[in-house]
Amino acid sequence: MKAIAVREGTNTPEVIEKPIPEPQEGEVLVRTLRVGVDGTDHEVINGGHGGAPEGEDHLVLGHEAVGIVEDPNGTEFREGEIVVPTVRRPPNGTNEYFERGEPDMAPGGQYHERGIVGAHGFMAEYFASPTDSLVRIPPSQAEVGFLVEPISITEKAVELAEASRSSFTWDPESALVLGNGSLGLLTLAMLDENENYERLYCLGRRDRPDPTIDIIEEMGATYVDSRQTPVDEVPDEFEGMDFVYEATGYAKHPFQSVQALAPNGVVALLGVPSSWEFEVDGGQFHEEMVLHNKAMVGSVNSNVRHFESASRTLTKMPEWFLDELVTGVYGIDEFEKAFDEGDTIIKTAVQFSAYEER
Amino acid sequence: MKAIAVREGTNTPEVIEKPIPEPQEGEVLVRTLRVGVDGTDHEVINGGHGGAPEGEDHLVLGHEAVGIVEDPNGTEFREGEIVVPTVRRPPNGTNEYFERGEPDMAPGGQYHERGIVGAHGFMAEYFASPTDSLVRIPPSQAEVGFLVEPISITEKAVELAEASRSSFTWDPESALVLGNGSLGLLTLAMLDENENYERLYCLGRRDRPDPTIDIIEEMGATYVDSRQTPVDEVPDEFEGMDFVYEATGYAKHPFQSVQALAPNGVVALLGVPSSWEFEVDGGQFHEEMVLHNKAMVGSVNSNVRHFESASRTLTKMPEWFLDELVTGVYGIDEFEKAFDEGDTIIKTAVQFSAYEER
Repeated sequence: MKAIAVREGTNTPEVIEKPIPEPQEGEVLVRTLRVGVDGTDHEVINGGHGGAPEGEDHLVLGHEAVGIVEDPNGTEFREGEIVVPTVRRPPNGTNEYFERGEPDMAPGGQYHERGIVGAHGFMAEYFASPTDSLVRIPPSQAEVGFLVEPISITEKAVELAEASRSSFTWDPESALVLGNGSLGLLTLAMLDENENYERLYCLGRRDRPDPTIDIIEEMGATYVDSRQTPVDEVPDEFEGMDFVYEATGYAKHPFQSVQALAPNGVVALLGVPSSWEFEVDGGQFHEEMVLHNKAMVGSVNSNVRHFESASRTLTKMPEWFLDELVTGVYGIDEFEKAFDEGDTIIKTAVQFSAYEER
Repeated sequence: MKAIAVREGTNTPEVIEKPIPEPQEGEVLVRTLRVGVDGTDHEVINGGHGGAPEGEDHLVLGHEAVGIVEDPNGTEFREGEIVVPTVRRPPNGTNEYFERGEPDMAPGGQYHERGIVGAHGFMAEYFASPTDSLVRIPPSQAEVGFLVEPISITEKAVELAEASRSSFTWDPESALVLGNGSLGLLTLAMLDENENYERLYCLGRRDRPDPTIDIIEEMGATYVDSRQTPVDEVPDEFEGMDFVYEATGYAKHPFQSVQALAPNGVVALLGVPSSWEFEVDGGQFHEEMVLHNKAMVGSVNSNVRHFESASRTLTKMPEWFLDELVTGVYGIDEFEKAFDEGDTIIKTAVQFSAYEER
């Protein structure tokens, strides 16, 4: 079968030939439909993550997959079911985090991530996966199911943020998403379906005309240009935010976000910046956290529960939004286009086989 | 009656004469037994808070009170009940935070704090308080009931911290309290009664022999000297902490604490530093928050629910601990001693009248 991989020592994905995987006991063989591309894939390609499985010279890319069960292999799955795989796998046997269904809470060294670190990804015509890492989704999501994984990341982060506010009465009305990439826009769409949020804002640094600004405004949200309004000036220009979602990985955002929060608000952090020393008013940060009961939660990865709620969230997202968000789906023969970057590209995927309703 | 107040323009508490307050409808008249002194009182004396009630030239001090109902004034309270008053009061009529019993979540401008900002405190022979701001405690706590307010501050902070970890399986075993003042030691004693925490640490910067180090070690906890082990080096020297409680107000602690946390851990911030710019590795802070699902919660004040749990917590604290913690209780005639500071002084109170069992 064909797979898209990056070989050690190179920074270019290529199509390689590999044998179709043989599912082990408790595993299902899945025929891949589509696999999404995101910023993490570009980081993997550029060598920013952990690399190939032990003893191998290449890493198959891809962690945002949707597929169709080809061979249930004696499990409770049925041929033809549409499934999305979770990303983390235990490195050696299992461990407590996987056993209790919370691989997203495992610390470094206690997980591999398929397509990212230590285990091959899903950008291949077929993949095998244990049943407890596969989530059934409705056939109506066969074409957009590669969005379930990125949405699940937001489900987890929002769950953590809401939990942090669960010991008192918290009725958030305003939310600010930092970042107008695909994850930012998916988060905005998710918050838009949440009846709590009456006023949504999305921050970027782009000039009009721009397709992401169009989406933000079609959704009824407000575009905040960070070049005109830095995050910590958002309350002066707009309002204090009950919830701030950081999806850019810009290392100054956590500090600025605390200033952007309304009293009793919460910041969720998702981006992963690298080391960067700079000056902050740590006293003001500390005081603001305390005197206004503010909270900050970091969030990485997601588990089966978040994939399940992501699929439900995806059902509610309007068709126009998904149409405008997914700017390109490419076959294996032109897979390079899925890795292009540019201001008119929002979300892309590689198609490995077409879904045909049965 | 006698009261201990600070006059505007001065930085010295003094005994003044005031009329005994007349309880309004829904208010109870309380005869004050004891009122504790803490760092906030010293800040108030030195002008670091909001000052006297509107139109008045002095502020009666004290926010950690215990008293005995002198005149129930037609309410459901009974004469002779032992009560502790909460601290916040609505500035004009009421507002949504007070109406739902969460004055601790009110933003600035929507509360006064008795003895701190905008309303007289409890350092007087009598005070009046609305019934919904009075918490009954057992007669056995008549002498140490002034500790209920500071413990309630920790109850609130721990509640927020635990809530932030409630969306996944979190079994904390290790905790580090930053600060060996009275609040730090009360927190340590509270965590010691919580069966979850198997290993407790308390950070200070004092040489032995020292009465607070004695208490820490009698409790079976480990004293961490911050001059030898800065907070961010705690995992190397000891272990990563599931919970860090910041009670010093040192502005660098939030950043160092994130490094001190074990994966999935949480920092609670309580101190209130002033503005201070310094360099931090914001990228590392951000990355650490995200990749290990860490959380940070700020917490201020507390409400009736926290006072009630604080009274239950106080019941469990061993007598030796309370004896060693309370280093002095002074009558009005020598009240200045309660405001002395020094390494042998941990917690003091002013006694306004003696409790006699009926």
